[in-house]
Amino acid sequence: MKDGLGKVRALVFDVFGTVVDWRSSIIREGELLAAARGLEVDWPAFADAWRAGYRPAMDRVGSGSLGWTNIDTLHRMILDELLVKFSIKGLSEEDIEHFNRAWHRLSPWPDTVGGLNRLRGRYVISTLSNGNVALLVNMAKNAGLPWDCVLSGEFFKAYKPDPRVYQGAAAVLGHANDEVMLVAAHPNDLEGARKAGLKTAYVHRALEFGAEKRKKSMAELNLDFDVLATDFLDLADQLKA
Amino acid sequence: MKDGLGKVRALVFDVFGTVVDWRSSIIREGELLAAARGLEVDWPAFADAWRAGYRPAMDRVGSGSLGWTNIDTLHRMILDELLVKFSIKGLSEEDIEHFNRAWHRLSPWPDTVGGLNRLRGRYVISTLSNGNVALLVNMAKNAGLPWDCVLSGEFFKAYKPDPRVYQGAAAVLGHANDEVMLVAAHPNDLEGARKAGLKTAYVHRALEFGAEKRKKSMAELNLDFDVLATDFLDLADQLKA
Repeated sequence: MKDGLGKVRALVFDVFGTVVDWRSSIIREGELLAAARGLEVDWPAFADAWRAGYRPAMDRVGSGSLGWTNIDTLHRMILDELLVKFSIKGLSEEDIEHFNRAWHRLSPWPDTVGGLNRLRGRYVISTLSNGNVALLVNMAKNAGLPWDCVLSGEFFKAYKPDPRVYQGAAAVLGHANDEVMLVAAHPNDLEGARKAGLKTAYVHRALEFGAEKRKKSMAELNLDFDVLATDFLDLADQLKA
Repeated sequence: MKDGLGKVRALVFDVFGTVVDWRSSIIREGELLAAARGLEVDWPAFADAWRAGYRPAMDRVGSGSLGWTNIDTLHRMILDELLVKFSIKGLSEEDIEHFNRAWHRLSPWPDTVGGLNRLRGRYVISTLSNGNVALLVNMAKNAGLPWDCVLSGEFFKAYKPDPRVYQGAAAVLGHANDEVMLVAAHPNDLEGARKAGLKTAYVHRALEFGAEKRKKSMAELNLDFDVLATDFLDLADQLKA
């Protein structure tokens, strides 16, 4: 194991894309809705557009142009715009709210649950997501994710990569910043964690944006984090968990 | 099931005394320390004194005479005073810090884990303790407590029975106040929850303060909460979980 990693006591996980496959899950929920309500929609494009609205919406909160707003509400604001843009009509308020909560029902990657169960034998494992607490709790219950703790930017009233989120997580877990490692599939999130003093583990989720937008290989990405893992089982191997 | 309980979606649990038997656990840890370091101490009296210092310490935070201070630190402040009062000498800093963390290693009541596993099939189950997050996470890992979520006054920078704690918990779980029920062995905590709009379940922990200070029977206590249960298994029976 790399120098300095022996003191790591807790692993905190980015969730959307790292733990769960948001894109396939949203496409599948869209198809279920379409079948039930007789819709024709390009669901891959819809899923990508929904996700693309997420960072700008959080940035409005970060800049103060929008007061503190949780992810359920931001997802709904984006969804309401997309229903118009994709000309989706005839849905009841109940349909729309159920679809908005598809983010509470995202499916884990195939290695997620097995990997987490190995890692939790050696480490405290927690979410550290911009997703709100209710979303993360419902997702864990639905998908069998064995978290020791559910941490969210919601507790710190800030969104990653704000350093308050990473440092707040280490503090409430009772650890120094460098005793905690962020696990994420996104370099910008990991860079935020590193700047905040945490250790960093990159997990390569090549298919996060679909087979047509497959990510470059890890070798080509030439990343510089404490651990580079192909999936959670490889992460568990490298951490001797 | 009583009227109005059908809409309950989440159970939040007081921890010290309700989920875990703090007194026997602290006495046992004291005896282990005494055997290792050659001490003679009245551990039941010590445990009671440690616990008795807890409410006044939180009240100093609540009144503002002490800034926000978590329970690990409050426990340590009380412990440092008690080591003098009980004339306990010769302990290293490491011994003292390990003993302070006995609160992270408290044992569940015999019905706790079985009851929680039944209840979590029907409800989201979470801690709602004044204990800090690290303490609650370590305790859960040590004792096999199957929480869906770990909530603490620490997240709301307030201690129960401050209404912000109860209402903050309902909000982050995504529920109305009356969709959440506090489970606790202490009437003052339950009264705080009721005033905050939550539902209430009393669990009778007759031996919380030891066999010599056995609590009155539930019938004699004549309590008025939504559910009165003898233990977590009885609670699960009453809630059809």
